[in-house]
Amino acid sequence: MPTILGQNQYGKAENRVVKITRDGATHHIKDLNVSVALSGDMDEVHYSGSNAHVLPTDTTKNTVYAFAKEYGIESAEQFGIHLARHFVTSQEPIHRARIRIEEYAWERIETSDANSRFIGADEVKHSFVRKGQETRLTQITFDGENWEVISGLKDLVVMNSTNSEFWGYVKDKYTTLKEAYDRILATQVASRWRFNWTDDEQKMPNWEKSYEQVRKHMLQAFAETYSLSLQQTLYQMGARIINNRSEIDEVRFSLPNKHHFLVDLEPFGLKNDNEVYFAADRPYGLIEATVLRDGCEARIPVDLTNL
Amino acid sequence: MPTILGQNQYGKAENRVVKITRDGATHHIKDLNVSVALSGDMDEVHYSGSNAHVLPTDTTKNTVYAFAKEYGIESAEQFGIHLARHFVTSQEPIHRARIRIEEYAWERIETSDANSRFIGADEVKHSFVRKGQETRLTQITFDGENWEVISGLKDLVVMNSTNSEFWGYVKDKYTTLKEAYDRILATQVASRWRFNWTDDEQKMPNWEKSYEQVRKHMLQAFAETYSLSLQQTLYQMGARIINNRSEIDEVRFSLPNKHHFLVDLEPFGLKNDNEVYFAADRPYGLIEATVLRDGCEARIPVDLTNL
Amino acid sequence: MPTILGQNQYGKAENRVVKITRDGATHHIKDLNVSVALSGDMDEVHYSGSNAHVLPTDTTKNTVYAFAKEYGIESAEQFGIHLARHFVTSQEPIHRARIRIEEYAWERIETSDANSRFIGADEVKHSFVRKGQETRLTQITFDGENWEVISGLKDLVVMNSTNSEFWGYVKDKYTTLKEAYDRILATQVASRWRFNWTDDEQKMPNWEKSYEQVRKHMLQAFAETYSLSLQQTLYQMGARIINNRSEIDEVRFSLPNKHHFLVDLEPFGLKNDNEVYFAADRPYGLIEATVLRDGCEARIPVDLTNL
Amino acid sequence: MPTILGQNQYGKAENRVVKITRDGATHHIKDLNVSVALSGDMDEVHYSGSNAHVLPTDTTKNTVYAFAKEYGIESAEQFGIHLARHFVTSQEPIHRARIRIEEYAWERIETSDANSRFIGADEVKHSFVRKGQETRLTQITFDGENWEVISGLKDLVVMNSTNSEFWGYVKDKYTTLKEAYDRILATQVASRWRFNWTDDEQKMPNWEKSYEQVRKHMLQAFAETYSLSLQQTLYQMGARIINNRSEIDEVRFSLPNKHHFLVDLEPFGLKNDNEVYFAADRPYGLIEATVLRDGCEARIPVDLTNL
Repeated sequence: MPTILGQNQYGKAENRVVKITRDGATHHIKDLNVSVALSGDMDEVHYSGSNAHVLPTDTTKNTVYAFAKEYGIESAEQFGIHLARHFVTSQEPIHRARIRIEEYAWERIETSDANSRFIGADEVKHSFVRKGQETRLTQITFDGENWEVISGLKDLVVMNSTNSEFWGYVKDKYTTLKEAYDRILATQVASRWRFNWTDDEQKMPNWEKSYEQVRKHMLQAFAETYSLSLQQTLYQMGARIINNRSEIDEVRFSLPNKHHFLVDLEPFGLKNDNEVYFAADRPYGLIEATVLRDGCEARIPVDLTNL
Repeated sequence: MPTILGQNQYGKAENRVVKITRDGATHHIKDLNVSVALSGDMDEVHYSGSNAHVLPTDTTKNTVYAFAKEYGIESAEQFGIHLARHFVTSQEPIHRARIRIEEYAWERIETSDANSRFIGADEVKHSFVRKGQETRLTQITFDGENWEVISGLKDLVVMNSTNSEFWGYVKDKYTTLKEAYDRILATQVASRWRFNWTDDEQKMPNWEKSYEQVRKHMLQAFAETYSLSLQQTLYQMGARIINNRSEIDEVRFSLPNKHHFLVDLEPFGLKNDNEVYFAADRPYGLIEATVLRDGCEARIPVDLTNL
Repeated sequence: MPTILGQNQYGKAENRVVKITRDGATHHIKDLNVSVALSGDMDEVHYSGSNAHVLPTDTTKNTVYAFAKEYGIESAEQFGIHLARHFVTSQEPIHRARIRIEEYAWERIETSDANSRFIGADEVKHSFVRKGQETRLTQITFDGENWEVISGLKDLVVMNSTNSEFWGYVKDKYTTLKEAYDRILATQVASRWRFNWTDDEQKMPNWEKSYEQVRKHMLQAFAETYSLSLQQTLYQMGARIINNRSEIDEVRFSLPNKHHFLVDLEPFGLKNDNEVYFAADRPYGLIEATVLRDGCEARIPVDLTNL
Repeated sequence: MPTILGQNQYGKAENRVVKITRDGATHHIKDLNVSVALSGDMDEVHYSGSNAHVLPTDTTKNTVYAFAKEYGIESAEQFGIHLARHFVTSQEPIHRARIRIEEYAWERIETSDANSRFIGADEVKHSFVRKGQETRLTQITFDGENWEVISGLKDLVVMNSTNSEFWGYVKDKYTTLKEAYDRILATQVASRWRFNWTDDEQKMPNWEKSYEQVRKHMLQAFAETYSLSLQQTLYQMGARIINNRSEIDEVRFSLPNKHHFLVDLEPFGLKNDNEVYFAADRPYGLIEATVLRDGCEARIPVDLTNL
């Protein structure tokens, strides 16, 4: 046979599971989008169509929902760990499980004003509004021995309205760009960071606190860096995370440079003193890089932050 | 000639304007998407292609950017009023202008921790993160005499995890739905509300405060209504706004019933006590209605909330 | 009570129904997205939450699927007529039904080459590839007496690479645009056309043939009009349809002017002789108008082509 | 310094270039979306913000447009090769260039009927309608010595309405799926294939013909495979390509199993004889695999087909 099978995986993608936990009248919510990818001894289903080693994707879906009941959802990472362990340890032909999860955040609707007296304000602990800022992400991979946990976020849109310059660059025959000494710097952060927890023997990180702290450091580094290039800002964001969070060894970013062009108002007799900008869609600069703890190996794939 | 021209309008759509206002080191941001639609004495451009009455759409774009400088952007509504007045009063063939605006909200990035000592925390007043919850909307229409201002929002996703029932409905031969006595009620609010300000002689509403208050009443009514149907909740949301905001005479909603189905866990020997839900995409119920101040005329078009 | 209910409607939206018809080994496919909106005597469900007049949206969904079996899907229009008639005539509180349908087109995969000898080429009559060009649309409204059928399409992207000019327009203080004597004219057609069939006593149009002919006339008018403005092209497209199709009295268009800007290559020592263009996203001109058969009333709402 | 820089790249993404070639009155069109990613000696811009090695992304954009004039666009692949070679050979700090291109296909609008006599049908050779089926893709990578060309497509939606089964699979405690002996098999093909052309000394493939032939073999294999699992169909699609196209050594697919569920019509007294289906959105099975020419190395990254 002149062709052979290479890397392959399968499973149910985008299982939307919402878990409500009732603590008396106070409800808590976890809202996830879970994708399962399994691989192992799967040659035959490709070559002959024999499903003898295939746990149906429908079953992987059922497992997601059943586990939400059996284990609860403490965090996206912990939930993914339960699932990955299950598939690899319960099915002999499955040697590796990768669980990808998106998490959508909600906050409570405040009901403190006079109107609420009709039903008793204290009782309204079951109403939520979706935060709608970034989407939290995680990816859990388990091969029966070692864990790889890569968490992250996407669609976190940030802007500095000053403290950004761009000059001193290479000029060739196709260069027309004018140097900028005070520009807007805006981007939509897509990031992934890899934990150095790989083994059940190690103490597991506090996934919720870690996320909150990484996000905070990332935002603060963006805000506090006087930027000579988006690459420099990116590096500061990654270094700040690694320097402050010992549980993380590697961070990768994909940062579109969302251009805000100063509008030329001179034809109308007006001076645009860094006030009025056109927010462009395409094209955009795209700056991508990995920041590593010194001595650690890079393992986050190049395009993971572009999914 | 067997065919004639009916309603028509033209202009530049989706002008993305970002305005930075610098109050010393503290910056303020307004981030709008402005669409212009003009109509009037425009038969000839359709019949013969003569552009003698046509102000180019490119000029309407330029005007948006120039006005951001000349008038600033106090609110989306006020900015739209400046633009609409300009087009109708400055160009004889233009009899009516409609300005649609989307506004994206930003909040400041907090920079209070130790790291910020390097640059002085007090100085970082130019860094923003996009809120990413609902998009604020307004539509200003001016015919040279009267104003119509319809504001609104879209993509405000809300959920009650209890206090919702659905039963006692009509059953025909195609009805299989089981009655529900405790269900999730979730929707993605699209709403428009019409102001009774129509005349330059009237006192203009405080557009910013009005938006904030309408949004608050809408959310609180959603949270505080014990719901027997999404229609009932919708009506309460509208009535709460009109009863509390004298500047508004009409509210319209388009509320998709974002179904959350209880997952049947019995095949796995588990009991789902209103805990684990499947969040479905399509199909969805779609509930639409107008709520009016008694005695007022309905003027918000049926599909405006579906744009 | 100071507030009252205005226009309202409800139903299940976006029911995705695929119907396979087997004519021996030759299969036929109809692929629809059906949305139901019902209105009538529905005050109580809004005021008190009583569902006594409410046929559940779940039932409207079931009806769509059952009717696909009971009546088949001869055309989107005919299928919508069956549904609308059913809801209005079978449920006393329902006085009006509006059915919106999107149709996705498929074409057969050709299997004519040597490889197909293994299974017999003639037998492969069940394999399809989605056409992926425009989406066909229809909207059927029935109030128990009269029918309104508005069909249409969206996302039909067309371009003329010459035979388009734009000059002789109004110039004000904000005008900087240069006149163009040979430009690209490109748009993404969104259109709706209204049939004059309103009564069961009239002979019903051939919906499939009508669609095919309207689309052909629209494309040909776009191609064959030497354009001095997009408005002129729009009018020609509408007039061509009405002049050629007696079953149609009104056509509306929403035509974004998808700007293709000539790139300035002079800084690189190159001459751009109408060869290299930048296809811009936003902003875009937006040209909207209705074309009517003389003597007929305009009934297509202004924003229907923007949904 | 406790952190270091890992893999990094930058450039202008999504440059939308449209090239019109005029052969007398007959025009030809190429419509591309070009993304540039450069890497090399770029440590300093990350560490210190020095742009001394940075060719601006704006320049990479200008180069795309200038090259469309200087070299024309014979094919997406050939255009990418010109660009990649230029960046690596003209800028000492740039050691590697990766060009990604999307191509949108257009076909001519036919103008053969009577109406065209007004302008002369033969003259209308400049009018196009976008095909709108799959998007063609390519990725060119050059490191100064070797080429890697990976072409592909996305959004090619296909369906077999019969000749698909799924049974004989593993059953665990979470399995509820019923075996299927006649089901719809539908997917939205995302695929990439790698050419064995790596060296300027080798004869370059005919890129246009290769694409057309790969697409044909892929579709025919989908249509002609009696499927016991989507994995089997995937493998057949890949093997068919490699067996028929000697210029290709590796193919990867990401195939969502777009579930079409038979609707249960029994509650309405109807029998659903494989006729009426509900087309579901999420979740979906996701089947991914690489098919290789025996003896060749796999080089297409796992998630490339998910971009």
